[in-house]
Amino acid sequence: MPKEEIKIFGGSTGKSFAQKMCDYIGIDLGKSEVFKFSDGNIFVKICETVRDKDVYLVQPIGLNPNDEFTELLFWMDAFKRASATSVTAIIPYFGYAKGDKKDEPRVSIRARVCAECIELAGADRIITMDLHSPQIQGFFKKPVDHLFALPILCDYVKRLNIDDLVVVSPDVGFAKQARNFASTLQVPVAIGDKTRKSHDEKAKVLEIIGNVKGKNALVVDDFSISGGTLVDIAMGLKERGAQRIFALVSHLMLSSSGAEKIENSPIELLISTDTVGNNSVISNKTKIVSVAPLFAEAVLRIHNRESVSSLFDTVPHSIINKPLN
Amino acid sequence: MPKEEIKIFGGSTGKSFAQKMCDYIGIDLGKSEVFKFSDGNIFVKICETVRDKDVYLVQPIGLNPNDEFTELLFWMDAFKRASATSVTAIIPYFGYAKGDKKDEPRVSIRARVCAECIELAGADRIITMDLHSPQIQGFFKKPVDHLFALPILCDYVKRLNIDDLVVVSPDVGFAKQARNFASTLQVPVAIGDKTRKSHDEKAKVLEIIGNVKGKNALVVDDFSISGGTLVDIAMGLKERGAQRIFALVSHLMLSSSGAEKIENSPIELLISTDTVGNNSVISNKTKIVSVAPLFAEAVLRIHNRESVSSLFDTVPHSIINKPLN
Amino acid sequence: MPKEEIKIFGGSTGKSFAQKMCDYIGIDLGKSEVFKFSDGNIFVKICETVRDKDVYLVQPIGLNPNDEFTELLFWMDAFKRASATSVTAIIPYFGYAKGDKKDEPRVSIRARVCAECIELAGADRIITMDLHSPQIQGFFKKPVDHLFALPILCDYVKRLNIDDLVVVSPDVGFAKQARNFASTLQVPVAIGDKTRKSHDEKAKVLEIIGNVKGKNALVVDDFSISGGTLVDIAMGLKERGAQRIFALVSHLMLSSSGAEKIENSPIELLISTDTVGNNSVISNKTKIVSVAPLFAEAVLRIHNRESVSSLFDTVPHSIINKPLN
Amino acid sequence: MPKEEIKIFGGSTGKSFAQKMCDYIGIDLGKSEVFKFSDGNIFVKICETVRDKDVYLVQPIGLNPNDEFTELLFWMDAFKRASATSVTAIIPYFGYAKGDKKDEPRVSIRARVCAECIELAGADRIITMDLHSPQIQGFFKKPVDHLFALPILCDYVKRLNIDDLVVVSPDVGFAKQARNFASTLQVPVAIGDKTRKSHDEKAKVLEIIGNVKGKNALVVDDFSISGGTLVDIAMGLKERGAQRIFALVSHLMLSSSGAEKIENSPIELLISTDTVGNNSVISNKTKIVSVAPLFAEAVLRIHNRESVSSLFDTVPHSIINKPLN
Amino acid sequence: MPKEEIKIFGGSTGKSFAQKMCDYIGIDLGKSEVFKFSDGNIFVKICETVRDKDVYLVQPIGLNPNDEFTELLFWMDAFKRASATSVTAIIPYFGYAKGDKKDEPRVSIRARVCAECIELAGADRIITMDLHSPQIQGFFKKPVDHLFALPILCDYVKRLNIDDLVVVSPDVGFAKQARNFASTLQVPVAIGDKTRKSHDEKAKVLEIIGNVKGKNALVVDDFSISGGTLVDIAMGLKERGAQRIFALVSHLMLSSSGAEKIENSPIELLISTDTVGNNSVISNKTKIVSVAPLFAEAVLRIHNRESVSSLFDTVPHSIINKPLN
Amino acid sequence: MPKEEIKIFGGSTGKSFAQKMCDYIGIDLGKSEVFKFSDGNIFVKICETVRDKDVYLVQPIGLNPNDEFTELLFWMDAFKRASATSVTAIIPYFGYAKGDKKDEPRVSIRARVCAECIELAGADRIITMDLHSPQIQGFFKKPVDHLFALPILCDYVKRLNIDDLVVVSPDVGFAKQARNFASTLQVPVAIGDKTRKSHDEKAKVLEIIGNVKGKNALVVDDFSISGGTLVDIAMGLKERGAQRIFALVSHLMLSSSGAEKIENSPIELLISTDTVGNNSVISNKTKIVSVAPLFAEAVLRIHNRESVSSLFDTVPHSIINKPLN
Repeated sequence: MPKEEIKIFGGSTGKSFAQKMCDYIGIDLGKSEVFKFSDGNIFVKICETVRDKDVYLVQPIGLNPNDEFTELLFWMDAFKRASATSVTAIIPYFGYAKGDKKDEPRVSIRARVCAECIELAGADRIITMDLHSPQIQGFFKKPVDHLFALPILCDYVKRLNIDDLVVVSPDVGFAKQARNFASTLQVPVAIGDKTRKSHDEKAKVLEIIGNVKGKNALVVDDFSISGGTLVDIAMGLKERGAQRIFALVSHLMLSSSGAEKIENSPIELLISTDTVGNNSVISNKTKIVSVAPLFAEAVLRIHNRESVSSLFDTVPHSIINKPLN
Repeated sequence: MPKEEIKIFGGSTGKSFAQKMCDYIGIDLGKSEVFKFSDGNIFVKICETVRDKDVYLVQPIGLNPNDEFTELLFWMDAFKRASATSVTAIIPYFGYAKGDKKDEPRVSIRARVCAECIELAGADRIITMDLHSPQIQGFFKKPVDHLFALPILCDYVKRLNIDDLVVVSPDVGFAKQARNFASTLQVPVAIGDKTRKSHDEKAKVLEIIGNVKGKNALVVDDFSISGGTLVDIAMGLKERGAQRIFALVSHLMLSSSGAEKIENSPIELLISTDTVGNNSVISNKTKIVSVAPLFAEAVLRIHNRESVSSLFDTVPHSIINKPLN
Repeated sequence: MPKEEIKIFGGSTGKSFAQKMCDYIGIDLGKSEVFKFSDGNIFVKICETVRDKDVYLVQPIGLNPNDEFTELLFWMDAFKRASATSVTAIIPYFGYAKGDKKDEPRVSIRARVCAECIELAGADRIITMDLHSPQIQGFFKKPVDHLFALPILCDYVKRLNIDDLVVVSPDVGFAKQARNFASTLQVPVAIGDKTRKSHDEKAKVLEIIGNVKGKNALVVDDFSISGGTLVDIAMGLKERGAQRIFALVSHLMLSSSGAEKIENSPIELLISTDTVGNNSVISNKTKIVSVAPLFAEAVLRIHNRESVSSLFDTVPHSIINKPLN
Repeated sequence: MPKEEIKIFGGSTGKSFAQKMCDYIGIDLGKSEVFKFSDGNIFVKICETVRDKDVYLVQPIGLNPNDEFTELLFWMDAFKRASATSVTAIIPYFGYAKGDKKDEPRVSIRARVCAECIELAGADRIITMDLHSPQIQGFFKKPVDHLFALPILCDYVKRLNIDDLVVVSPDVGFAKQARNFASTLQVPVAIGDKTRKSHDEKAKVLEIIGNVKGKNALVVDDFSISGGTLVDIAMGLKERGAQRIFALVSHLMLSSSGAEKIENSPIELLISTDTVGNNSVISNKTKIVSVAPLFAEAVLRIHNRESVSSLFDTVPHSIINKPLN
Repeated sequence: MPKEEIKIFGGSTGKSFAQKMCDYIGIDLGKSEVFKFSDGNIFVKICETVRDKDVYLVQPIGLNPNDEFTELLFWMDAFKRASATSVTAIIPYFGYAKGDKKDEPRVSIRARVCAECIELAGADRIITMDLHSPQIQGFFKKPVDHLFALPILCDYVKRLNIDDLVVVSPDVGFAKQARNFASTLQVPVAIGDKTRKSHDEKAKVLEIIGNVKGKNALVVDDFSISGGTLVDIAMGLKERGAQRIFALVSHLMLSSSGAEKIENSPIELLISTDTVGNNSVISNKTKIVSVAPLFAEAVLRIHNRESVSSLFDTVPHSIINKPLN
Repeated sequence: MPKEEIKIFGGSTGKSFAQKMCDYIGIDLGKSEVFKFSDGNIFVKICETVRDKDVYLVQPIGLNPNDEFTELLFWMDAFKRASATSVTAIIPYFGYAKGDKKDEPRVSIRARVCAECIELAGADRIITMDLHSPQIQGFFKKPVDHLFALPILCDYVKRLNIDDLVVVSPDVGFAKQARNFASTLQVPVAIGDKTRKSHDEKAKVLEIIGNVKGKNALVVDDFSISGGTLVDIAMGLKERGAQRIFALVSHLMLSSSGAEKIENSPIELLISTDTVGNNSVISNKTKIVSVAPLFAEAVLRIHNRESVSSLFDTVPHSIINKPLN
């Protein structure tokens, strides 16, 4: 059964990402408008018919998360009331994923609140990347296609041809994902952890499981705002005799002080992606790799009724192997 | 059946309004915290037990509507997960009420989206004031206590002792409410309207039904951002021989250019309320009357299982008759 | 992707309207049966397979609104349980739309109740015409295709070739729509309003903004039951020197006393549509224009995945330009 | 924990039943109004505050089922929007219960549709009597208090002091309930059934399991409209030598032809209840026993947090043992 | 509009039934895995892409009803999260259908609980057979295709060529269905019932309406666990002079003692179907006829957008007329 | 506002735990019955009135998780239909919490499925202990009171008076909770982890961060089935010179082979709780500490509208400080 053409739209923050996806697929970006009135109200309008179409709307929940989230709700509603058959919310970075538990009394589980509202407003499917915790998929009732930046980022790292590399997790919480990076890069892994030698010692001491001496280290994490965690582990690695230090995060939201901290650190290069959408403050040491082709490829497979998970069994050449710049 | 004590909390924008309500009732404001992180994420926390209590949370959706709306959702969820018996969202100004219809193709009915999300997040009841259109109550499934600023504002106007007053609606759309003001003030009403004499004339001409010559005029409207509508009708009234010009709006969100426009207009005094919460730009000609006592009185009646609508049959002396300053 | 054939069914009141739609499209009316038992219970039955089909069911909520509404719910359920892919409720006149607000304490918002039940029972989309207020779309969660009788009615008026016409709104509440009629007919507009000259006068006096003297007037409104509003404004127009008086309403539900009142009034011709479905009492001065072709055209566009709103940008010749009888 | 006073309201058909309940309890009927406009629209209004009260609304779905059902939905919504704590729909007769299955293709399960809409509109609990099938409770998600007319009707029968009585079920479908009546009256049971002796015989022959010769028979059934079933079995009983014939049904909705048929039949007395509410056509042979005291007693127990089912273990003297008239 | 290929999967109990359906249609069974861990947890996994496919999952709720029900929920969720377009739960035997009413105070309506959870977990349609009561369809909101074993079972009985057959219902509750069997087989019907001659007699006596003397009897019922009902009526038939005794039930779940009881009874042959799925204890006198072809034919019709009910107007030769073994 | 007495009921597996809770509070266990029929169907019945009461039902989802889960659903429904005001599901161990993510394609998020069904069936609140991941609270929409076994278990450990203790996490995943135990016991922590020295080494090597030589070790984890993880780390600790080895898990579900493995290991004592409910296979080295008093204390606080979280700020003496046996 042949399907209608793919229709991808961009919210105010997701427009350039959506354009990159359209370029990859070879289609025109859907026509739409967003206004923000002087009283702060956001107004969205779809400028072409979407009747009985499967539409995709790109909007990260990033550095202006409340504007971006509220706008996303209005898009979902607008597409549904315009009689789209199905609406997929493409949220390259889902910033409220950090609010995924009630770790103190009387707080909100914000990721669940956002997930429920996005579905209520009309989303039939969600495509996102590297959620803060895998359980967040369970906050959604609708299908989530959960993509990983790993293959694109590892491809980039491989082509840097760094000798004697070790992947380093900055703490025990990211150890499992760090092992996935190490396994893909076929290099060993080391895990950092701050602990106290005995109960009555005040200062936390950084320990590192695994050998890093004389090696080149790639510190991996899911996101960075202040740069603090990355720089701390980088200094600890230097103390333990590591040579060159690289860092890699899936989502980059550096504050200006964070960018400065990276600038002045032993970190040689910070590799990340374009999921956040409007990151104006970026360190000179930063390399942004676009994951828009990966999202585009996922949309193509969804459209052609193919497996999205198989995208990660064998990553297509069209996505990786791009010239290094 | 005696009830638990009343518990009123304030969101980040509603805190001062909530404090005024608590002062009226004679109780302490509920303890809570809000943080906005450097990545823009909002975090809310209730700092005292609310288990099995009926709580009230004050948060306008005003000049930072998306932050305020998103924070409101998190509050609702936090109160529910903290086992409050019921949660009432007090939204003195509901800014997205302006998005109440689909007056062009493929747009969102934003007021319905907000209403549904607020209920989904946990609101059991809503208290609000002077909604943009009365139909918006029907966007909510839960009970809405819809308050009117009219008695407090009319009380203020009466005590100004203006002779020979006429209430003026700036257009046909607000005519019905203008009549309510005129009826309460026991003065006549006039209705302005911009129209074309015949079909092929370009310019719209302001017409006014009702006599204004030699009278003092009180222009009434529901809200003002740019001041444009108010100033236009004020100029028209002057041309038709009106003497002094006053204006009155329920909700005030003047932009800085709007404030300037009022400043330079024939309007002598612009009367409004404190529903929007954080209006930093206010014309010198502006008088803000607090409606927090009215909201407090409504909460008392809800708490005591009394009729809220009867509040408008005979407005209590505790709310009006305050010294004019 | 080619679609299945269109399947249109009629409820007990909507059957003749549905037949007119089928005639326009050139298809057979869907086979179905309705019984009303001696205890008043209604029973509906679909008499052909609708498995995996997109079906349309026509039923106005008009002069027997409770029977028609309850029957509509049963149709929605029957189609869903018969495995129709989607069910569109075509409600040419939605009579409970008048109950769209809580304008006095402790009443129901009946339009919301009906909207929710229709959706609960299974409606996936609603097509209706000239709702009492545009906000009612927001009472529905599902997409609403909101049609306007204006182009068909204006086409009819144009072909009457009345000289020196002015469109008259009977009150300020209908002023905006009256302007739309005037703009389409390229004639001026006048707005009536009943008001008091000063507060202590008892009697309301009809004022009219805009010039009507010596002109032929077309009074426009959304519906008429008793004929009262139309006749009052007609008399006022006559007093002000208007020549011929015509009236036009989208939905006609004249009571027998209403028909008599029109009969004896200065109104020369009352133009309306066939949305109510079973209006047996009709004045001799009445001309009914069918809007079934407009609904049929909307269904065709929905079926062909085209924009319905564009139907009003350029009204197709197949709908208007019919011989005047 | 003492509770607020009981508040019982009556819908347009349920008002007299509600008044009888209030008389039993010794309280005033809740104040309310219903209008039916000339276009058939129903409008309901509660005329006293119900804020934070547990309210009960009586409305059968009987001889004007669609009006009564639609009005019931509006009441539920009105009470909820008026901030009642809980709303109990008292539906003494639920006429759409007969639509409880899909026994032919492409029909609606009307009892489920009605149940869902009543709950959606706001009912928190339902009290009803002698449902057509016990499974219908499962169409409701909310608690149903299902009352039985049996104890009140059997009490009436006992005080008739009929010798040598046999309870007769008119068909196998009502056999189980007939046994309950027989067991309460401590008399034997007989079961009628129409069948064919062999496959190729045309005419159905009435057979009766159990001895009826020389006995006085009480035919029991759940409702009667045309009187047909009752009269057929009565004639069959006469043929088999039964003496006096009595009949008893929980819900009575006799049509005028049905009343005539009973009048001309061997049935000496038809005993029933006042659940249907507005049965104007009643045979002279009919005795109506009020079950309003039973409903009132159920409401008292609900209010006092007592078991309603225990009401049927030992039926209180206040309900039965009334003087026979 | 051509559709994707049919995809049928089997749960742990439904796998062999699903395989039989696939054999009939001529397709491969969908690939999937189920594990039961040592802590009793069940884990399900779909092993091929189902993106945008209409899938069918076969799982009876039979002899391990809680495992089978819980597993069914996980399958529904897994298919939905794997982006299947629609998921049909094929439940050949729905064991909790017996819990269809609240016939004593404070019990659960278990069939409604199961129905709601199955829909919540993701089922878009249900296909099942010979539900315990027809009202259970109304516990589901989604469409139910309710199949009947009757044509297949009657076809089998016909080919046994038994002379002078009478169909016997073991009690009045199954009388209506027994008549359907008799009508299909074109033989007379008899109805058994246990009753007391007069109120004070202790022992229940079996009566039989209809002539059985010298005839061969086919006792029909919906299911059998202990064999008790079947054997009791068989003995009663023998006492009344019946010749050969056959029995037939739609669903067979014989306990080992039940199997023994049948073995030692006058019942010559017990005919049933394979709906329960894993019935290991079967009497030697038992003949199991597969209804998988009937379910497969229903799936084909659903897939081809044809009427399923028409399947019972004229039963296809592919389903019946199989060689007798 | 005084509240009704507390009513605690036990499901089939939770009955003894519920009895212990009642003993602590000093009330009688609620009367109820459960049957499991020969066809595996579960039937539940509440044997006293719960009308307008807040009830608590104890049922772990442990070693027969599907029976226990299904039964729990029926209890929720039974309590709701019996008109309980609120129903709290007390699930001391929630076994399906392990299914909290979609870590491979096309699987179910089983914890979300269970959470949703429990809420749908009627649970208004959940009380549980030591969930597998904190995010699972977000799978529930209703409030969850999440208790910790830590204070009771640490109290027990303290009273063992073990010198020179170190808390050991068996892997990086449990490191955070291990630190909480260490902090409460005021002893240092060590973290085990199995890793490969370099990428091409086959065997995983256990590393331990932190000093264990000559110390007594307490290995902590959330649950144990096979005993494998605990024994592996115990052997590794021995190799590194640890003295005595203790183990502690919140939830114990030892298989018989697991019990044997513990028996033959260097582990001296395995401390756990009674949350799983029916653990018949227990090693001789096992000490079960009851957490029923903690659940009872939580219920008391909920009942008295006090904070449950404060229970963990200062653990009451009534719960801990019990004689060591």
